[in-house]
Amino acid sequence: MANKHVGTLSMGSHTFEIPPILYETNRKRLVERLKKVVENSVVVLQGGSEVSIYDSDTSYLFRQEAYFNWCFGVTEADCYGIIDVVTGDSHLFFPRLPVEYAVWMGPLTPLDQFKKKYKSHHVHYVDELKQVLENLNRETLLVLNGVNSDSGLTAKAATFEGIEKFKVNNKDLFPIIADLRVIKTPYELDVLKYVTEVSSAAHRHVMRFAKAGTFEYQCESEFLNYCYKHGGCRHTAYTCICGSGINSAVLHYGHAGAPNNFQLEDGKLCLFDMGGEYYGYAADITVTFPINGKFSPQQKIIYEAVLKSNEAVLKAGKPGVSWTDMHLLSNRVLLEELKKGGLLQGSVDDMIAADIAPIFQPHGLGHFVGLNVHDVGGYLKGNPERSTKPGLKSLRTARILEKNMVLTIEPGCYFINILLDNALADPNKSKFLVADVINTYRNFGGVRIEDDVVVTEDGIRNLTKVPRTVQEIEDWIAGKDDDKKYA
Amino acid sequence: MANKHVGTLSMGSHTFEIPPILYETNRKRLVERLKKVVENSVVVLQGGSEVSIYDSDTSYLFRQEAYFNWCFGVTEADCYGIIDVVTGDSHLFFPRLPVEYAVWMGPLTPLDQFKKKYKSHHVHYVDELKQVLENLNRETLLVLNGVNSDSGLTAKAATFEGIEKFKVNNKDLFPIIADLRVIKTPYELDVLKYVTEVSSAAHRHVMRFAKAGTFEYQCESEFLNYCYKHGGCRHTAYTCICGSGINSAVLHYGHAGAPNNFQLEDGKLCLFDMGGEYYGYAADITVTFPINGKFSPQQKIIYEAVLKSNEAVLKAGKPGVSWTDMHLLSNRVLLEELKKGGLLQGSVDDMIAADIAPIFQPHGLGHFVGLNVHDVGGYLKGNPERSTKPGLKSLRTARILEKNMVLTIEPGCYFINILLDNALADPNKSKFLVADVINTYRNFGGVRIEDDVVVTEDGIRNLTKVPRTVQEIEDWIAGKDDDKKYA
Repeated sequence: MANKHVGTLSMGSHTFEIPPILYETNRKRLVERLKKVVENSVVVLQGGSEVSIYDSDTSYLFRQEAYFNWCFGVTEADCYGIIDVVTGDSHLFFPRLPVEYAVWMGPLTPLDQFKKKYKSHHVHYVDELKQVLENLNRETLLVLNGVNSDSGLTAKAATFEGIEKFKVNNKDLFPIIADLRVIKTPYELDVLKYVTEVSSAAHRHVMRFAKAGTFEYQCESEFLNYCYKHGGCRHTAYTCICGSGINSAVLHYGHAGAPNNFQLEDGKLCLFDMGGEYYGYAADITVTFPINGKFSPQQKIIYEAVLKSNEAVLKAGKPGVSWTDMHLLSNRVLLEELKKGGLLQGSVDDMIAADIAPIFQPHGLGHFVGLNVHDVGGYLKGNPERSTKPGLKSLRTARILEKNMVLTIEPGCYFINILLDNALADPNKSKFLVADVINTYRNFGGVRIEDDVVVTEDGIRNLTKVPRTVQEIEDWIAGKDDDKKYA
Repeated sequence: MANKHVGTLSMGSHTFEIPPILYETNRKRLVERLKKVVENSVVVLQGGSEVSIYDSDTSYLFRQEAYFNWCFGVTEADCYGIIDVVTGDSHLFFPRLPVEYAVWMGPLTPLDQFKKKYKSHHVHYVDELKQVLENLNRETLLVLNGVNSDSGLTAKAATFEGIEKFKVNNKDLFPIIADLRVIKTPYELDVLKYVTEVSSAAHRHVMRFAKAGTFEYQCESEFLNYCYKHGGCRHTAYTCICGSGINSAVLHYGHAGAPNNFQLEDGKLCLFDMGGEYYGYAADITVTFPINGKFSPQQKIIYEAVLKSNEAVLKAGKPGVSWTDMHLLSNRVLLEELKKGGLLQGSVDDMIAADIAPIFQPHGLGHFVGLNVHDVGGYLKGNPERSTKPGLKSLRTARILEKNMVLTIEPGCYFINILLDNALADPNKSKFLVADVINTYRNFGGVRIEDDVVVTEDGIRNLTKVPRTVQEIEDWIAGKDDDKKYA
């Protein structure tokens, strides 16, 4: 039957249907933890709103607020949700829309339809929130308040007319919910697997689409179309980074000042860092490949150095291991390989002590992925703090790995003039650099290999399904393999 | 030479290169008008900034603020621009970025490169703004402040540290710059023509792509990809409205609560309202077509009624004519045609007096298009005020047409249950409605035909290039015509 998916969390039978138990499970986990801290309480979360573009009557395409999304999975704007910590019951609150709304926005959805879609215990209108909270009569309202360690911005506390009449606690909710978001449930893993597979297939498609003469943004466009058309992903998890040639060394290329507007050139590399988003869940994948389909010897040296670095972490990662150690491991492998490739000289231990690795990889090994592409919980209290060392301060977490964490593993190696020049001018660093060789890489750009992985019982499971070895990439671009190999 | 377009306002040689004289001309026009009002003054405009997605470290894809864009064409975030009303000189101010920025965002652009790209008289860093203004020593700073008549939101006044030391006038700039934006220059018309043609071609592509079983959002995705890949349009001018079947009667379908997620069904219509955006300039086009490529007799009646309504305005529009009269003309034609089709009965004059037209077309005939899709200046002081009549209050302007205004002409006819039920229950209205016939259209949805047009010396020029007659649409979908016919 056509359109039976409408009213479910799915974009049609060719896409993934998210079961409401995903959100129910998240709420249960939250209630269990909160019960031990502030038993007689109710969690109050405020959903996201549309954001106008300046003074115009158009808006940025709506994105749901991530904490609210994690609890309720609601796709509509301007809602609230509460969770009674005593009973575990959830209540959703939807805007009471004026009748004319139907003309512009479609038939008004009755509350019981929302109840069915989101499997909420209770549904109300937003204007009933205060009354419902009064009737519940819990001692404390728990609201968000905490700093996102990637952005420095604060997760906003829910607010509503009349909140001043309640006792509000903005201390206990944030650290617990952020910590819970770090460990994914099996339901969440299914969604992350789906969106990573869709994004992998889109990358494979783009690898064959990209040719000398193509514009970087045309590759972005093909990626977006693939993820949306085949995967139902209306959003990407972040602005697409489609760097070719020297742009592949610009870590956040693709922004408005450098909008993926170069033309691909024969003999150069593409570094494409793109990921779809499905019902808020993010993928974050980087592929690096030669535009003409064949790695040059120079490209092969750098690519394989980064690949070895990536593979070392895939092999070593498991519960109990420190992420900082994984970062250092990847650095070590990279330095060893660059030494073999003739770019570095001297003892690798000494190089590590002299902070040589961040010259080539000025970013951390990776980050959590979930409802944010740089997912929360990297530096929560009770976990290792952010290092101040040059090589480690940009790590987005220093936590000990646990089962069902989802992270990116994304070592890279870039030739960035300002970093090379500073290092060559510093005798403590330049002694490790083979300047003559490194200078031949000045317009090389960079390589990054980024996988999305799950920490399992005893190791790491890679969710990413793209050609990775030099041979696989060359075969893929040449059309020798088909999608089945990566299914 | 590859990439010679980089550093110009172009996305490559297959796209349109915007000449900096476009913005120079806008500034000149502004200075001429301001000179007569506040001669010893300087205009200060603040460019747009990136907007974070909640507390995360990702942002909505950057959009430039439209007034700033109109004056300067700058694509980067966090800039300021000033225009000296005495000399006409322009100054641009760019953020002074820290050295580390180069690692993440690419090599820092030297000021003289910005000067060349934007043909600004002077370029500085943002932190020099106060000093530059002090040196200029004009009596008054002119800043924005005024209500957007479509959104009700206020265009924000520029602000910077130290502004309190200056005499600020926030009265005179807004009405003049908003009024100037209504009349497009030849340079602006070229860009609007380009983006309308790209969007037209994308619509033609989608008309052939859409088939029974396709999802509405897959059509959206194909449109986005076409506009970006072939036209360099990274943004659309508004959220795509891809309504099929009953959804075609939902005027702003496609929002997060109704995200173009239905599957197209044989025998139904598609109403696709989508437009690309190029360097801020918008297109806004609606096509309506049968999914199976053949209009049913019922579909043909409604479609041709709306088309006649559209054509009547295309024919009658010219300088000196009132937009309100055009709206009433389109209403009259629609009512006449619906009467011929057997849906209405009685005198059309009486129907107009009884507000029958807004039952079927609850929106205005159209709106200005420019750097906003609903462009500014609809109800500026000194022009006709907004009517309070049911049929006219939703008109986005009541102005007298002038040469080089760009507007949409978008009559529609929808079968919206709530409006039909109210009308059928009202004896003053129901007497005109042939209920038995109208009820056969209950699940029909709606038709809209929306063109982007320029008012010329003595008439109207249609920028939109899509199949419009029943025959043209059927031929196009059948693959009988090629793109040359619409070039």
